[in-house]
Amino acid sequence: MRTSIATVSLGGSLTEKLTAAARAGFDGVEIFENDLLAGPLTPEEIRARCADLGLTIDLYQPMRDIEAVPEAEFARNLRRARHKFELMRRLGTDTVLVCSSVSPLAEDDDALAAAQLSQLADLAQEFGVRVAYEALAWGRHVSTYDHAWRIVETAGHPALGTCLDSFHILSRGSDPKGIADIPGEKIFFLQLADAPPLAMDVLQWSRHYRCFPGQGGFDVAGLLRHVLSAGYDGPLSLEVFNDVFRQADAGPTAIDAHRSLLVLQETVGLARPPAPVVPTGIAFAELVTPDAEPVSALLGALGFARTARHRGKPVDLWQQGEARILVNTGPAVRRDGTALAAIGLESPDPEGAARRAEALLAPVLPRRRTPEDARLDAVAAPDGTELFFCAPTTPQHPGWRADFTDTPGRLPPGTGVLRIDHLALTQPWHQFDEAALFHRSVLGLHAQESVDVADPYGLLRSRAVTTPDGSVRIALSVGPAPTEDGAHAQHIALAVEDVVAAVRRFREAGGRMLRIPANHYDDLAARFDLAEGELETYQDLGILYDRDAGGEFRHCYTRTVGRVFFELVQRDGDYRGYGAPNAPVRLAAQHTAKRLTGG
Amino acid sequence: MRTSIATVSLGGSLTEKLTAAARAGFDGVEIFENDLLAGPLTPEEIRARCADLGLTIDLYQPMRDIEAVPEAEFARNLRRARHKFELMRRLGTDTVLVCSSVSPLAEDDDALAAAQLSQLADLAQEFGVRVAYEALAWGRHVSTYDHAWRIVETAGHPALGTCLDSFHILSRGSDPKGIADIPGEKIFFLQLADAPPLAMDVLQWSRHYRCFPGQGGFDVAGLLRHVLSAGYDGPLSLEVFNDVFRQADAGPTAIDAHRSLLVLQETVGLARPPAPVVPTGIAFAELVTPDAEPVSALLGALGFARTARHRGKPVDLWQQGEARILVNTGPAVRRDGTALAAIGLESPDPEGAARRAEALLAPVLPRRRTPEDARLDAVAAPDGTELFFCAPTTPQHPGWRADFTDTPGRLPPGTGVLRIDHLALTQPWHQFDEAALFHRSVLGLHAQESVDVADPYGLLRSRAVTTPDGSVRIALSVGPAPTEDGAHAQHIALAVEDVVAAVRRFREAGGRMLRIPANHYDDLAARFDLAEGELETYQDLGILYDRDAGGEFRHCYTRTVGRVFFELVQRDGDYRGYGAPNAPVRLAAQHTAKRLTGG
Repeated sequence: MRTSIATVSLGGSLTEKLTAAARAGFDGVEIFENDLLAGPLTPEEIRARCADLGLTIDLYQPMRDIEAVPEAEFARNLRRARHKFELMRRLGTDTVLVCSSVSPLAEDDDALAAAQLSQLADLAQEFGVRVAYEALAWGRHVSTYDHAWRIVETAGHPALGTCLDSFHILSRGSDPKGIADIPGEKIFFLQLADAPPLAMDVLQWSRHYRCFPGQGGFDVAGLLRHVLSAGYDGPLSLEVFNDVFRQADAGPTAIDAHRSLLVLQETVGLARPPAPVVPTGIAFAELVTPDAEPVSALLGALGFARTARHRGKPVDLWQQGEARILVNTGPAVRRDGTALAAIGLESPDPEGAARRAEALLAPVLPRRRTPEDARLDAVAAPDGTELFFCAPTTPQHPGWRADFTDTPGRLPPGTGVLRIDHLALTQPWHQFDEAALFHRSVLGLHAQESVDVADPYGLLRSRAVTTPDGSVRIALSVGPAPTEDGAHAQHIALAVEDVVAAVRRFREAGGRMLRIPANHYDDLAARFDLAEGELETYQDLGILYDRDAGGEFRHCYTRTVGRVFFELVQRDGDYRGYGAPNAPVRLAAQHTAKRLTGG
Repeated sequence: MRTSIATVSLGGSLTEKLTAAARAGFDGVEIFENDLLAGPLTPEEIRARCADLGLTIDLYQPMRDIEAVPEAEFARNLRRARHKFELMRRLGTDTVLVCSSVSPLAEDDDALAAAQLSQLADLAQEFGVRVAYEALAWGRHVSTYDHAWRIVETAGHPALGTCLDSFHILSRGSDPKGIADIPGEKIFFLQLADAPPLAMDVLQWSRHYRCFPGQGGFDVAGLLRHVLSAGYDGPLSLEVFNDVFRQADAGPTAIDAHRSLLVLQETVGLARPPAPVVPTGIAFAELVTPDAEPVSALLGALGFARTARHRGKPVDLWQQGEARILVNTGPAVRRDGTALAAIGLESPDPEGAARRAEALLAPVLPRRRTPEDARLDAVAAPDGTELFFCAPTTPQHPGWRADFTDTPGRLPPGTGVLRIDHLALTQPWHQFDEAALFHRSVLGLHAQESVDVADPYGLLRSRAVTTPDGSVRIALSVGPAPTEDGAHAQHIALAVEDVVAAVRRFREAGGRMLRIPANHYDDLAARFDLAEGELETYQDLGILYDRDAGGEFRHCYTRTVGRVFFELVQRDGDYRGYGAPNAPVRLAAQHTAKRLTGG
């Protein structure tokens, strides 16, 4: 179906919004009145701009406080409406949104509302305009979709229909089932928005916290199914008021928005993008660094061996168990120190995975390879991390591994690292919801609950996206307003069988773990009845401990190199978390370490 | 009374928090457990640090999910408590906060709760500790202060009392009157917090949106009166969870916090700082600039005359009607272009005003003057703006004006500027609530409602602080996350009798007003029935129009010089606003103008 977006959903000038909507692939826009009023373009210029961009103008909105008012007031309202219909003619759009009144003058009189809306529709018809009447969730007398529909039905005017808005319907807990009983041709417009489950004043919730379908907690797809079975065939249009999106660049937000509509259409069977290909493991994590020495020293102490080197690029492969880390000293895009730049995802169908990513608007990365190199499909995640889709490597089909030449030599004993347990990526502050939707829809991962974590300098929010079996786990987090150096830490967590043994070997190799304050161990002593001597060992080695109903978690952290540090984790039983209760301790310890080293 | 603050109310490391609390003049602190756990200082070191800073440790908190649980669970809880009591002994604090349980294991059994809290108090006594039991607003079975008190009363244990928290009590709409019936010696602790009136889930409201007394909507003073009449004589302690304060520097937040407690004590009659001296007018606004030419040209076109020059400093006085603007090209602290650096407030008692400001922790500014200069008391507002308290100038008592030597010459005709209507100051993003409290308490101004204004690049929040007669009006606003150049605009609004005539004269003098898009005038035509030709005139001159029940408002804006622009405003009837409906149009037009000039 045709897709559309209200200009209020995006940040920037009207020109920037229209350009972003067109580039992201929307077919049309709703012009939000304030965006027109505040901008320098005349209605004719906006119309021409949209035509140039291939956008239709599907709706002009909103017209407020029209109906069920005393006669003199209604006369003023009709005068106002005439001006706006004239404007719409210049703009070249034929549908106007009328919200149910919040005016103290409005009377609780459906017959009066229907009669006045009918008069409004008479006037609209003169201008070739249709009126779409919508119940605001906080409307004075009309606040539910079925009530708005009853008034429209009573009016029985061909130029008067209803507009449905998923936020207004679902935020009130209305049952959307009744939508299917509205004749499809009387649903003049459909606005879609999701929202996080917040128990708060519905007006504030609507004005500041709406998000794109799939980013929140509403069953937007369920609602859409009812609208479709009613026979609606107009555009699917996003109307999202969100404080963060207002401040973000319109371009990425529009892409995020359009992706959410594509996924929604897939969910209800309106679109069939290539099926998701769930990754089966992490093939590698790639660090870029201007100076390989500090990272190499750290990897060496962690028991990794430099096992191979890329045939044509300055990229080393470090390996231990199934954990593979590439260290790239080539001319990477990012020159701001050591960073986690790319993730190789093992995929049963790399080309299929890339096709889905591309269909869902992930930027496809140019292949930086020589003709001999293995084909590697790659896309960019919203935070810029490169995601490579890799076939599993086997001796018969070495895949990406064939681009590397083995380095001769005996393997060091290692520290018992088994595989990469998870990767932690800090997101730009305005892309947290976008990132979760991306990983869920493009990669087919499951998004877990968000958790708040107290950092000494502000709250962090963290959310993991994983495969059901835990073979791929990515922890996304977003921090307080960026610090002066702007760089947020990323980390690679390595699974070990015995973290105590691993840290001891790391130490013998000259490594130093992040120092954890003694107070943490006092607290563990208070909370858990651990074996004699266990806590002393953990304290000595800098190991943190957590336990939940499923099992136990022991973990510790290396010092940070550039933006990157490593974590060693030992999971026992069915512990599926990430040691969130210990995160404030770790963050504070990292701040302390930074102060001590002046870094 | 003694004042205290919970470490969770401030951002930074524990050391930073303690230092900030001591510098702001608090007598003590509550140690929030996570701040201790995450930090490198041992309990003994924290104790010593507090002693060095002259801070007592008034409370250790919180202990959770203790009471009304099955026996085996309670045994584990006692074991945990013993560890914490031991820790408190090392910390040197004798009161612990126990929050009502939120555990699914907790039973709805007051007798069991009382019996187990009594056992806990037995154990506490061994360590010289008192247990203060508090009802969380979202406690599983105990969520009101009177319920918590009934359990404490039932237990009847000397080491068990209650803790009252204004947020938990007022957020639930409980009547605080009953507090007066609790024996004062059984109120072991009092925590104070305010909050903005948000209709939202109480747990989220509490964890993220608390603020200091006087910054929100609760009657904290009324509650405190009940607590005092009960006979409570412990510390007044602030416990404020706030996402913004967590990210802000601890130093200014602590001062803000302590100021709020001083004002609260004044309100209930516990303290008598010097009485507020409400300013009676704006003596002058002072611009600092590295280059006087652009500002001088603008002031000249606006009809201002350079009437005098400071005897000893490179400061010119520009005047028209009662509007006086100083242009300072001296070595000002800020060298980042033209900025509004200082405001002269006419005060019936400048010394008294300064004494109050100092008593309420406003930084007193060193007097940069020669022995001949008039005495000028000055303090810094939270945003750094210097506030001078000036006696009204009369020919007999010229005051600050005596420092200026008249410039000979004839006055130009002027544009009809009468006085400074208001000053608009953009606040640092984390100081919006602080600024309103400052202006209210230190200057005795009234704070009006906050309004949200849509800027193309994010929402702004704006709030005016005024004298009742409007002789002093300051509009405080806070914008989205700072832009790259970091500088937010400030402006000086000048009252004129006839804005049309004023703009015409401004134009004749070569001035150019900010261009307002034609769409605004189409909208005015739709909304208001203005006289024939009126809109055309406004559109030609760039004048915006608003009307409310009180009267009419016509206003327009100059281009921006550095961070500063001017507004001309004509108020008719009893219009008391600032043209907020037009603010998005103005903001968008300023962005457009900036793009066009590449500025």
